[in-house]
Amino acid sequence: MKPVNVGLLGIGTVGGGTFTVLRRNQEEITRRAGRAIVLKMIADKDLKKARKLAGKNTIVTADAMEVVNHPDIDIVVELIGGTTVAKQFILKAIKNGKHVVTANKALLAIHGNEIFAAAHKHGVMVAFEAAVAGGIPIIKALREGLTANRVEWIAGIINGTSNYILSEMRNTGASFAEALRQAQALGYAEADPTFDIEGIDAAHKLTILAAISFGIPMQFDKVYTEGISKLAREDIRYAEELGYRIKLLGITKRTPKGIELRVHPTLIPARRLIANVEGVMNAVLVKGDAVGATMYYGAGAGAEPTASAVVADLVDVTRMHTADRKHRVPHLAFQPDALTNTPILPMSEVQTSYYLRLRAFDKPGVLADITRILADSGISIDAMLQKEPSEGEEQVDIIMLTHETVEKHINAAIRKIEKLSTISGKVVRIRLEELNRN
Amino acid sequence: MKPVNVGLLGIGTVGGGTFTVLRRNQEEITRRAGRAIVLKMIADKDLKKARKLAGKNTIVTADAMEVVNHPDIDIVVELIGGTTVAKQFILKAIKNGKHVVTANKALLAIHGNEIFAAAHKHGVMVAFEAAVAGGIPIIKALREGLTANRVEWIAGIINGTSNYILSEMRNTGASFAEALRQAQALGYAEADPTFDIEGIDAAHKLTILAAISFGIPMQFDKVYTEGISKLAREDIRYAEELGYRIKLLGITKRTPKGIELRVHPTLIPARRLIANVEGVMNAVLVKGDAVGATMYYGAGAGAEPTASAVVADLVDVTRMHTADRKHRVPHLAFQPDALTNTPILPMSEVQTSYYLRLRAFDKPGVLADITRILADSGISIDAMLQKEPSEGEEQVDIIMLTHETVEKHINAAIRKIEKLSTISGKVVRIRLEELNRN
Repeated sequence: MKPVNVGLLGIGTVGGGTFTVLRRNQEEITRRAGRAIVLKMIADKDLKKARKLAGKNTIVTADAMEVVNHPDIDIVVELIGGTTVAKQFILKAIKNGKHVVTANKALLAIHGNEIFAAAHKHGVMVAFEAAVAGGIPIIKALREGLTANRVEWIAGIINGTSNYILSEMRNTGASFAEALRQAQALGYAEADPTFDIEGIDAAHKLTILAAISFGIPMQFDKVYTEGISKLAREDIRYAEELGYRIKLLGITKRTPKGIELRVHPTLIPARRLIANVEGVMNAVLVKGDAVGATMYYGAGAGAEPTASAVVADLVDVTRMHTADRKHRVPHLAFQPDALTNTPILPMSEVQTSYYLRLRAFDKPGVLADITRILADSGISIDAMLQKEPSEGEEQVDIIMLTHETVEKHINAAIRKIEKLSTISGKVVRIRLEELNRN
Repeated sequence: MKPVNVGLLGIGTVGGGTFTVLRRNQEEITRRAGRAIVLKMIADKDLKKARKLAGKNTIVTADAMEVVNHPDIDIVVELIGGTTVAKQFILKAIKNGKHVVTANKALLAIHGNEIFAAAHKHGVMVAFEAAVAGGIPIIKALREGLTANRVEWIAGIINGTSNYILSEMRNTGASFAEALRQAQALGYAEADPTFDIEGIDAAHKLTILAAISFGIPMQFDKVYTEGISKLAREDIRYAEELGYRIKLLGITKRTPKGIELRVHPTLIPARRLIANVEGVMNAVLVKGDAVGATMYYGAGAGAEPTASAVVADLVDVTRMHTADRKHRVPHLAFQPDALTNTPILPMSEVQTSYYLRLRAFDKPGVLADITRILADSGISIDAMLQKEPSEGEEQVDIIMLTHETVEKHINAAIRKIEKLSTISGKVVRIRLEELNRN
């Protein structure tokens, strides 16, 4: 059978990995796909590097548009990243009737609706397994493996850099700054780590997961995003004492009032499987109404793990391109005319539990004042930890875990607590999820 | 679009669950599949029960062959189980040009090659996600999600009953018999639990996993199978003291000498994620050369979790049936003409590590004799635990963990050790896997 011709845009980490995997496993991949998948063209500004990678039958160019416009190319793989030129190339490829495979989560989270509409119009596939959680086939699980289910919620460790930092902080007692430096030294964090540590990368991925789970458009601008850069090591330690771990989770949940979309540090019970996902690994926990809880675990980044997802998409597109357009797996899991505009719940309306750390003067009546304020706001306390004051200190740490309440209510209560003369400084508030309920 | 008409054979636990899930999530499933999936016919000998379940537009019959031969039926769902009549119905459905969805692992493990050959000949799909690990989309992950990879090995907790029993033994100190009774009382084990506790059910599933991972035919008769019924509670405790847990694992591994296919109790490091999979839950750990280790976790049995997989297959078949035959996902992941006859490695040639428990008289020279025998067989010791003799006892338990060796060598060494006059009774031997290497 005629081979499938692939044009690759960008030979950075993932592009290089894709090249390696396609070459090394060529025979096995062909045995699966039923026809050869051939890297026909490579575009990269670094022509020298591209020529070094390319086989003798691979055309090398510095101009990505040349690949996108080449009549022999069946599938364009976009691994340039970013939301500017990558978008132009993808839209042009779609217009030219070419299928697209991309790992570009930022682009899909922000311009996905436009891209998928174009793909639908031109009858091509845009595959994006590599955009979320690297090599873990989570897009496939959600779009195809769990089609029987009404997805209730998803909670994912979907940023390896921040999970590495949190693991380091817990295992070594390091501060955030120290753990970040360690992550940078090991190549797990970039020189400018903002996207990873501030939860933006996780928010991109969560946007995609929510869209395909609930049949809603991409709505990156509505994701509540809070990173890990302000986490203190004592909170990790106190959480541990109470039987919890702190993870940066992307959470999306269907509620009667709307869909929750939020990325933030979260206390979760240490005995949960997902709490034991350490280092740069990723894991996505999916609760479906029929299947119950399922979890998907693996490497969320890296050359070959991400290439594993890119190549799986190439095989998928190769297998599916003869199916009539109406019968292919829909881009967003639901048929394009079956997306809904379920509202996204504002963060102030989200209902969850909380970890609170207060610094209080060790005086009679302090606890009474705090618990009164919480009770007046209808917030009940699930657990409490009061530390002995250190030698010569007048202040003590009080840690409280609340039962579920609404975010705006806890915020109001915190403002009142902070005004108490017996409380010093700000109240630390971290959300807490048991991950065991609907 | 015209609905897809499904005929359901058997309304036991999974059949009932399929009915429930299809009805409850009808709207959502249609939004995904692009057309309605309609339960047009039900066959069950219990006509009363079938009529109670059926909607007014569903034809009920006691004769499964009537469903299989009905011209309106597009997909036959076989949930009868067993390897006799189920096989006849499936082969007839295939001959009639109908697609088949089945949860029948025993049938596929034993007669899969014949069934898939028939399906290939008649150009129909036989989908079987529900046959392995219930609602976890592991078949899809292996056949489609990880197509870029050369699978190196798989280790799976793929029998919930035995995992429940092992969890109970560890958590409560119960004996095997007590934990089994508890499992039976809770409905996790059947009155005749042989298939579950002796590893046969796991061996069925492992046969299927190995076939689609390595592109080999189903070879159930070549699986080495050892169950958990002879496990003593002290071995679970000693393993724990050494930092290990005992799980019934299905293991298949590609080695230069052949493919390993084995089900047996296995010590694994307690810190591994899969060691923390408790109760009736299932998990499959897959090591691919590109993606590294990935793990898939969820409910391995039960009405709705298994129905989740059955319905996902229905959606898949609905989506794929317009693709030309050569481009559909091949049944065994590899194209039918691309299967290989890689040999299966006999158990005596398998290389792994071992936990040994010996009951020895507390006399000088005992250890020297044992370690000499092991050293002569080229077996080196990784860790040792010698217990103090109980009051009034003359014998002590000695526990040894070995480095990797070949099974026939450890067996020979054990025979020699058992002949020592200082050793009382049989040596307990349990295999040990670190699950961190190639």
